[in-house]
Amino acid sequence: MEVMSEPRDASVVLINVFELPDDEVDTFVAEWRERAEIMSKAPGFRDSRLHRALSPGTRFPVVNIAHWESRAAWEAAVSNPDFQRRVREQRAVSAHPALYEVIVELEPR
Amino acid sequence: MEVMSEPRDASVVLINVFELPDDEVDTFVAEWRERAEIMSKAPGFRDSRLHRALSPGTRFPVVNIAHWESRAAWEAAVSNPDFQRRVREQRAVSAHPALYEVIVELEPR
Repeated sequence: MEVMSEPRDASVVLINVFELPDDEVDTFVAEWRERAEIMSKAPGFRDSRLHRALSPGTRFPVVNIAHWESRAAWEAAVSNPDFQRRVREQRAVSAHPALYEVIVELEPR
Repeated sequence: MEVMSEPRDASVVLINVFELPDDEVDTFVAEWRERAEIMSKAPGFRDSRLHRALSPGTRFPVVNIAHWESRAAWEAAVSNPDFQRRVREQRAVSAHPALYEVIVELEPR
């Protein structure tokens, strides 16, 4: 019989895929950084990496990948009124945030 | 005067965002795993993590995030004929692969 010796890790991965024109990326990144500073002070935040596409014309030129201790911690953080206000004020960018779990992990053979 | 003591790291991040119906994810993941095994044997492969959305109905239910030593290493790997054949044979899934660099990295405050 399998014994569960420790609780399953409840950590989650937030992946947010952004659609915007290449010439708006620099301004967007500056605004994103302000919001990310707020998030990085929230309980349960682990880390965040903002990725920028190497080639122009990429469908999703900016992708944020962050790790949180739990879904509840992330949901509490995004409900922060200051964060919500900044999201509402940001220029028109199509964002696709969602929570994920890692289901396959590969290393070199 | 700033002295460049070492060459800039040429490593790249591959982010591949997949669009497909939730009820096709399990089959897709099995096929993806076969292709990823080929990639993981290629020179310059560092690691790969396949992410699955926690909630049904997510726009991008599967996202692969991989690290490669260089753009050239990744391009050589995807030109592998066996890999190319499997990509052509896979069921109709909308894939959005692109190479990225990390431009912001945040840790908890």
